[in-house]
Amino acid sequence: MPASRRELPRFSRAEFEARAECARRLMTKSRLDAVLVSTEANLGYLSGFTSQLPWLTPARPWYFLLPRVGRPVGIIPDSGVDAWRATSWVTELRTWRSPNPENEGLDLIAAAIGSLKVRYGRVGFELGPETRLGFPVADLLRLKDMIRPAEMVDGSGVLRAARMIKSPAEIARIRRAARIACDAFDALPDAFEKGWSERDVMRWMQAETLLRGADKAPFMMVRSGAGAISSLYLGPTGRRPKRGDVMLIDAGCVYDGYSCDFDRLFSFGPPTDEVKRAHEALWRATEAGLAAARPGNTAEAVFLAQAKALEEAGWGRPKMGRFGHGLGRIITEPPSNKLGDKTKLRPGMVLTIEPGVSLGPERMLVHEENIAITEDGCRLLTRRARRRMAEIET
Amino acid sequence: MPASRRELPRFSRAEFEARAECARRLMTKSRLDAVLVSTEANLGYLSGFTSQLPWLTPARPWYFLLPRVGRPVGIIPDSGVDAWRATSWVTELRTWRSPNPENEGLDLIAAAIGSLKVRYGRVGFELGPETRLGFPVADLLRLKDMIRPAEMVDGSGVLRAARMIKSPAEIARIRRAARIACDAFDALPDAFEKGWSERDVMRWMQAETLLRGADKAPFMMVRSGAGAISSLYLGPTGRRPKRGDVMLIDAGCVYDGYSCDFDRLFSFGPPTDEVKRAHEALWRATEAGLAAARPGNTAEAVFLAQAKALEEAGWGRPKMGRFGHGLGRIITEPPSNKLGDKTKLRPGMVLTIEPGVSLGPERMLVHEENIAITEDGCRLLTRRARRRMAEIET
Repeated sequence: MPASRRELPRFSRAEFEARAECARRLMTKSRLDAVLVSTEANLGYLSGFTSQLPWLTPARPWYFLLPRVGRPVGIIPDSGVDAWRATSWVTELRTWRSPNPENEGLDLIAAAIGSLKVRYGRVGFELGPETRLGFPVADLLRLKDMIRPAEMVDGSGVLRAARMIKSPAEIARIRRAARIACDAFDALPDAFEKGWSERDVMRWMQAETLLRGADKAPFMMVRSGAGAISSLYLGPTGRRPKRGDVMLIDAGCVYDGYSCDFDRLFSFGPPTDEVKRAHEALWRATEAGLAAARPGNTAEAVFLAQAKALEEAGWGRPKMGRFGHGLGRIITEPPSNKLGDKTKLRPGMVLTIEPGVSLGPERMLVHEENIAITEDGCRLLTRRARRRMAEIET
Repeated sequence: MPASRRELPRFSRAEFEARAECARRLMTKSRLDAVLVSTEANLGYLSGFTSQLPWLTPARPWYFLLPRVGRPVGIIPDSGVDAWRATSWVTELRTWRSPNPENEGLDLIAAAIGSLKVRYGRVGFELGPETRLGFPVADLLRLKDMIRPAEMVDGSGVLRAARMIKSPAEIARIRRAARIACDAFDALPDAFEKGWSERDVMRWMQAETLLRGADKAPFMMVRSGAGAISSLYLGPTGRRPKRGDVMLIDAGCVYDGYSCDFDRLFSFGPPTDEVKRAHEALWRATEAGLAAARPGNTAEAVFLAQAKALEEAGWGRPKMGRFGHGLGRIITEPPSNKLGDKTKLRPGMVLTIEPGVSLGPERMLVHEENIAITEDGCRLLTRRARRRMAEIET
């Protein structure tokens, strides 16, 4: 194993207090007395609680209640108290013996909501767009009656807005993940062995990012094809890339809960003229996206800048729905760099710049970088891809 | 990278047809005209669709409708058609341009349900215990009105029951994952380098299982302590194990969508007498669990056999809620080896045998193996842990 780099320092208590404060301001704006969260992204964000198992198994739910006024409380299985105490800044806990499908902590949630300081009579749950629920819907519906007279409403907007602006410590984690993946990408052409399938490349890339300090590598899409790939959903397969192929690797590895998300293209042997032309257009469109990614511009403007650069380079308006998106605790977060997304960019947002070109039916190429919006523009979190496509000898 | 072992052959079409048939029989029993699934575990199980990204991002939902009578249909983002065609046996597709938070395919679902052959007027969704929903609850509630007069009810029991009995091809995948993790465990004592933290061990174990042929290694819990650990939720941390410590590694690596879940204990230097005694008791309790794991016995009986062995070895009735559980596409599935779980074991079930002992407040040790129930008993999928705890030199 390569010598571990120094781990980043843990999030400070001040950081969590600032997150809670921000969420509380947004709760006032949304007329909510509290939010109840149950997913890794939101519960971990607000409470700091960190553990692997709760998010991989549906056997035991974990909840966190942040009141607008009053003390936050973790409502968790009793077997997890030590992990909570070791990782969360929140000391108030209610526990039950889980699994207990008849009542997975629902009475504890209802009691905690019942003792809230009430102003609006509304409690926000994770119901809205780009949100999942961390416990069974049937339990949510039971809870809806159990918490009356408090009203169950969508509170996902509070978390979405709070998480959209990242702190320097959060950005440092995304940058760490991105740099680890950059190093692995740089090492791949030398490491590649004849006969590897896309699936073997995926395994090697995951292992390489882990050994270089990533904590997880859940997304490692690998797909190859003659001069293009068909989509970002198919792959890796058992296909063995061969001379004349392009291979796209889209990497989402995670450091301390934060994900990068960017891709690199590799040519097996020299790229064809069409591939070179597409790559050059993507590289330029990315430059245009980077130039447009600054405070005051909208996510839509970042899309349009990339689309214009592609059109100027002779590529038609492509069919991809968006040219990048937010990222952080989840590999895709709002906003979307697409037509109609009028989200104004602000310092602290982290985005992907992701132009794509269509080379025919089910033939595409994509480029992707990760950036953080600064006071006067943006900062690359990835190391910028080379203008010339990397080659793998065959 | 070690030479890849041969990949297992893909699931046959006959396998998927048998799954659909089984689900349909269960639908008749539950008086359902169809089930609508949206999670990796259930959608992948019924349709065969395989992709990384859909399950990592909440930006675009994916749905699959299996009618009791009539053709199944995938309802998916248009960017995923190629991946669907390459991995699923189902050819009927409805697509829309996603992300589109205003209407993420809801009208397509409602239309598909509207054209069902109706007998019961009820459609099952993923609402029940140990189940999550793969799309926003707010959309589910909109859909509830959109599908009237069809009634939205819980259909999770159908999937739970269908998935509980594994085919030989499914068991082969769990066994492959388990054997890969066994090999990595065997290699760890030699590979361990002085100064590694628990987090470094996690990274190495993940990388090692990937390079040996796992597709993912999402669960790799590593925790160390003086003669015991505090729970299965805390860890890995930055703690560096030292002489006199016990280290527990609980491994859930995945091969082709199926997970193993078992742990191994390591002693840094010779184990203390207390640790030896606990380890021996756990080893024997596991033997007792293996002997009890046979068709006709209940999950509760498997718990009781382990508990009895521990009590006979002089350990009190422990506080752990259960001594093992089902596993498969998810790292924990029903049944639970616990008091009150009267699920009758049947050939094709895959279980963990997982006794634990408490050595004091927040001090525990656990043992775990994976088995498949056969016609007349069970078969180990892991290689049985050695009776003597593995040692790591310090």
